[in-house]
Amino acid sequence: MVAKKEHHHQTGCPIACGLDIIGDHWTLLIIRNLMFLGLHEYKEMLQKEEKISTNILTDRLKKLECAGVIDSMIHPENSRRKFYYLTVMGKDLVELMVDLVLWSNKYLTEYVKIPRKKREELEKGRKQFIRKTLMELEAWESENLT
Amino acid sequence: MVAKKEHHHQTGCPIACGLDIIGDHWTLLIIRNLMFLGLHEYKEMLQKEEKISTNILTDRLKKLECAGVIDSMIHPENSRRKFYYLTVMGKDLVELMVDLVLWSNKYLTEYVKIPRKKREELEKGRKQFIRKTLMELEAWESENLT
Repeated sequence: MVAKKEHHHQTGCPIACGLDIIGDHWTLLIIRNLMFLGLHEYKEMLQKEEKISTNILTDRLKKLECAGVIDSMIHPENSRRKFYYLTVMGKDLVELMVDLVLWSNKYLTEYVKIPRKKREELEKGRKQFIRKTLMELEAWESENLT
Repeated sequence: MVAKKEHHHQTGCPIACGLDIIGDHWTLLIIRNLMFLGLHEYKEMLQKEEKISTNILTDRLKKLECAGVIDSMIHPENSRRKFYYLTVMGKDLVELMVDLVLWSNKYLTEYVKIPRKKREELEKGRKQFIRKTLMELEAWESENLT
């Protein structure tokens, strides 16, 4: 599933091995786009306020696809549109991502601004927020991948 | 708690804000050293097989300390020895870190090698592994920080 053997894989440490796939700032923002923000197209991700550069976005999408975390498909009615989406392996990062949201929300209160609706969902607790996120992903899939 | 306002803080996104503090490969390996491996000294971390460079290690330790994720203390009997350890904020990353271990262990089986004893602990389940990790951290603290 992993495209090539990288440096840290050799140590066998599960943290280091995992970080070789997702331990990059931009990579995790792409996973966030797909997991929480409903941004599935290259152009949409490019327009996010963080201003990822085209070469980094292209590189990280390619690496995530090679690693099996995301997959892509051409729009059935418009061959110029391509969708990216999380695979089962990618969706399984939901716990880790929600833990990061909760941690930031707890400790970085000065900086974090969560829209009211999302905050209400978050306040229902970790498990429910995870379930809600997965349900939304499945709803998107059944609408777009069938 | 955060030393200076950085780019992504401005967006208010909890994922982006969190990644400004811990979204770096080496930073998360340092947190791993302190959380799971019992490596609390600069020299010990430098000797890990990943071969972090001195300037990166110094920089990341400083940033983590500024952000309030770790703290440090001089050895009471040897002023040349300095210990780093996770604060409450740092220890609260245990869920996220354990989720990463579990994810890697599930999907990167070709690369991950976990020592038998740790694997047995992991197989007891997420909650118990988190509890065990926190207990070990507390044991280290009561031995060294009092």
